[in-house]
Amino acid sequence: MKYIEISSRNNDKIKYAAKLVSGAKERNEASLFVCEGLRLCCDAFYSGYRIRELYVTEEAVSKNGEKIESIANGAQSVYLISDGVKDKLSDTVNSQGVFVIAEMKHSQTPDISLGKKYIALDCVQNPQNLGAAARTAEALGIDALIVSGGCDIYNPKALRASMGSLLRIPIIKTDCLCGLIDDFNKMGGLSFSTVPDADARDITSLDFSSGALAVIGNEGNGVSDEVKAATSVLATIKMAGNAQSLNASSAAVITMWEMMK
Amino acid sequence: MKYIEISSRNNDKIKYAAKLVSGAKERNEASLFVCEGLRLCCDAFYSGYRIRELYVTEEAVSKNGEKIESIANGAQSVYLISDGVKDKLSDTVNSQGVFVIAEMKHSQTPDISLGKKYIALDCVQNPQNLGAAARTAEALGIDALIVSGGCDIYNPKALRASMGSLLRIPIIKTDCLCGLIDDFNKMGGLSFSTVPDADARDITSLDFSSGALAVIGNEGNGVSDEVKAATSVLATIKMAGNAQSLNASSAAVITMWEMMK
Repeated sequence: MKYIEISSRNNDKIKYAAKLVSGAKERNEASLFVCEGLRLCCDAFYSGYRIRELYVTEEAVSKNGEKIESIANGAQSVYLISDGVKDKLSDTVNSQGVFVIAEMKHSQTPDISLGKKYIALDCVQNPQNLGAAARTAEALGIDALIVSGGCDIYNPKALRASMGSLLRIPIIKTDCLCGLIDDFNKMGGLSFSTVPDADARDITSLDFSSGALAVIGNEGNGVSDEVKAATSVLATIKMAGNAQSLNASSAAVITMWEMMK
Repeated sequence: MKYIEISSRNNDKIKYAAKLVSGAKERNEASLFVCEGLRLCCDAFYSGYRIRELYVTEEAVSKNGEKIESIANGAQSVYLISDGVKDKLSDTVNSQGVFVIAEMKHSQTPDISLGKKYIALDCVQNPQNLGAAARTAEALGIDALIVSGGCDIYNPKALRASMGSLLRIPIIKTDCLCGLIDDFNKMGGLSFSTVPDADARDITSLDFSSGALAVIGNEGNGVSDEVKAATSVLATIKMAGNAQSLNASSAAVITMWEMMK
């Protein structure tokens, strides 16, 4: 493995990489993102993301040489970094000292099609919720996750919370969720917004056999009014207990389960 | 409101309260626990926990005088604390400056009975998972949460993650989960362990109409062997996707939903 050593936290490359870790704006402008940790770096590499740069500490190489070598072979450049540089790049408490800078994919899947099952996240901002939704979507076999423009799927916390699912599952990014829902409706697909209203349709009464597109809203405000208007059905999870206790993430799990089982 | 002022972080009462915040051993020996935050303190008070002591900052009183007055009227002692004392007691990033020390309840519910629905947590240690399970149990109307000896329901992080559900729902504490499962089996109840084994019974094929007791295992090891042996059925969640991505907390949500819907 041929590498270039970097020991200074003030190295320009490191300063730039640290900006990609912390800033969504920087990531989007450059169409680059950062993964931290061996598993996530492997997920990015084996899911077909182009690896621009690999940063590793000597300790990481001595512990996981073989896996790191695989990633290094696919990377454009490889850097051996000091512990100080590792700390500057790290977004975690116990860093493994393995980082990649990878290129975003812009069209990870083709357009939507009838018969498939989609989960759309309407302005879900919390990286933990985004990661959890992606993880459940992968487990249950959802065909693709649809995210609107503001949804930061390359956020390091979201990537980690998803355990790499965000890098493995098909994702459709759209700046116009309503337009995409309209298209699905016109094909004859069932689109629905999940809402906490007692007078909405019981989710267990819906027929998902021809595919469906379910919209999950954000923690605070739920599904936005324009998206609710675009979907053909408002659906709800009927509960025997205190409905206010069901959080957005659990509602998403139940919705996906009902669609997929 | 009559209160005693405490401004020193080294006050003996404050040092003791801080120990109750951080230590399960201290809490269990004293049968006392600490709630932080106005909502959680109200939950404890209105759920019938005896409030030994209330600690509030002047700022908290000026912002939420009325609610604090209600708790104060039910508390044995009320203390007005300085910001330094608040920081010493706090387990959160942005503390509201409201704390109570309350007495644990030891028998929060009567024994188990046929026809009811129970969730048992087998050695779930992570406070976030414990809190999330309690929250979903309350939302879906589970009759009681069963926790074995090692499960620390009065952990401040678990209480917060549960949004107070741990203080509001019936909880059965047992030092012998297997014995309790045996009792339920003998009554004719359906007990089952949730497992990730492909050859276990499909959870959707079980009949919950006479009540059920479901066991959820811990993140790392799942349900323990002796508990698996005690339950009458091993049940699993069949998935179309990558089953390894389903985390313990999502599995618990799906299990409770199937039992309760």
